[in-house]
Amino acid sequence: MNLILLNQNDFKSPTLAQLSDRRFEHIYNIHKPKIGDSLKIGLINGMIGEAIVTELSDSGVELKINLNKPSPSPLPTTLVLALPRPKMLKRILQTVAAMGVKELYLINSYRVDKSYWGSPILEHQIEENLLLGLEQAGDTLLPNVYLRKRFKPFVEDELPEIAQNTRALIAHPYNATPCPQAEDIPTTLVIGPEGGFIPYEVEKLNACGFDSIHIGERILRVENAVPALLSRLFPI
Amino acid sequence: MNLILLNQNDFKSPTLAQLSDRRFEHIYNIHKPKIGDSLKIGLINGMIGEAIVTELSDSGVELKINLNKPSPSPLPTTLVLALPRPKMLKRILQTVAAMGVKELYLINSYRVDKSYWGSPILEHQIEENLLLGLEQAGDTLLPNVYLRKRFKPFVEDELPEIAQNTRALIAHPYNATPCPQAEDIPTTLVIGPEGGFIPYEVEKLNACGFDSIHIGERILRVENAVPALLSRLFPI
Repeated sequence: MNLILLNQNDFKSPTLAQLSDRRFEHIYNIHKPKIGDSLKIGLINGMIGEAIVTELSDSGVELKINLNKPSPSPLPTTLVLALPRPKMLKRILQTVAAMGVKELYLINSYRVDKSYWGSPILEHQIEENLLLGLEQAGDTLLPNVYLRKRFKPFVEDELPEIAQNTRALIAHPYNATPCPQAEDIPTTLVIGPEGGFIPYEVEKLNACGFDSIHIGERILRVENAVPALLSRLFPI
Repeated sequence: MNLILLNQNDFKSPTLAQLSDRRFEHIYNIHKPKIGDSLKIGLINGMIGEAIVTELSDSGVELKINLNKPSPSPLPTTLVLALPRPKMLKRILQTVAAMGVKELYLINSYRVDKSYWGSPILEHQIEENLLLGLEQAGDTLLPNVYLRKRFKPFVEDELPEIAQNTRALIAHPYNATPCPQAEDIPTTLVIGPEGGFIPYEVEKLNACGFDSIHIGERILRVENAVPALLSRLFPI
């Protein structure tokens, strides 16, 4: 937790916040602050700044908040990801949030096991994992996550508008060109499931204007492909 | 498993191999081949090629092997990593192998908990996890992993020679310059522990000729920093 994230409910006055949950425990056990010490803090979907510890007990902490800095610029990208297996999903949500993606579509594909859509993570733990990613990265802006359980209607009816006027790319290592140079331009990036998209799906995406790209001979797991591709596509 | 990896002991003749372990189970349950079908295969530290299924039962498979292609080129890099917590270590070994790193030093640092050095993974599961990474990526060349439990002697006595005539970089987000452009040149990359190197350690590394670099405002976990940095530092 490189940034402690607050929400509006944590404030008891415009500049004083009180915490007694896992964030308090983290502060108490890891930062071990004294009264007057300063912590790095952010407001969810707001600014970043400094918190001075004004009261501290073994059950809670009071912080004087001064928010004075914008959060890091978002990556100008929409990420479209075939729904990963539940075991991977939490980590990928954290990674996506930590890397600065703000628009994430989790979509169906032939090789997405139907059972994945029943994962309780989708119902109850998306925001929790996004927050963990933001806390790690030092960002405040919560990504939007959209679930799309049907591939064809998504690609035919919704994706063309999402991808309009963007660099539209599928990470698909067959019949692909090398990943383009880093450029700070709006991009729609589609990443397939373990085992890849089937040819029909690639054709549909190509027909929708998406170019197949690869990042070398090696085939990466989704959890590595996401940071590798985002790091290569966008300048610092 | 995008590549089935063989070792010399799997061969019963120069061109015939027999498998009955987890690789057989993967072939049997996932590929579900018939006699005559072809599988992608590689020899550990050797070539890549094709295996034709010549015999198949519910306890084993016999494969006719034709190795005819070199494995992907290694990344020209030595990676020096503060020993990650055991929970992360397996995944990071897989990632390092999958990304094409062939020289990995796991080193101590002030923020590496002493208990991590007692992890049974270090004694028994390094190769297993490297193999999982190679199987994923489609590579055959097993990385060398070196354990260095003392920071100062490593940096003073060993690192200068490792880093000689290479681009020597520490990923350290403070007082750092942006990560340099992708270039296919020998590189020594040092990545610190969770919480980062302490100033003394950064000074020692800077004194050894290492430049501090960052990949943006966001602070990434080691498991994301490794693919993000490698993907940015080396062209496809």
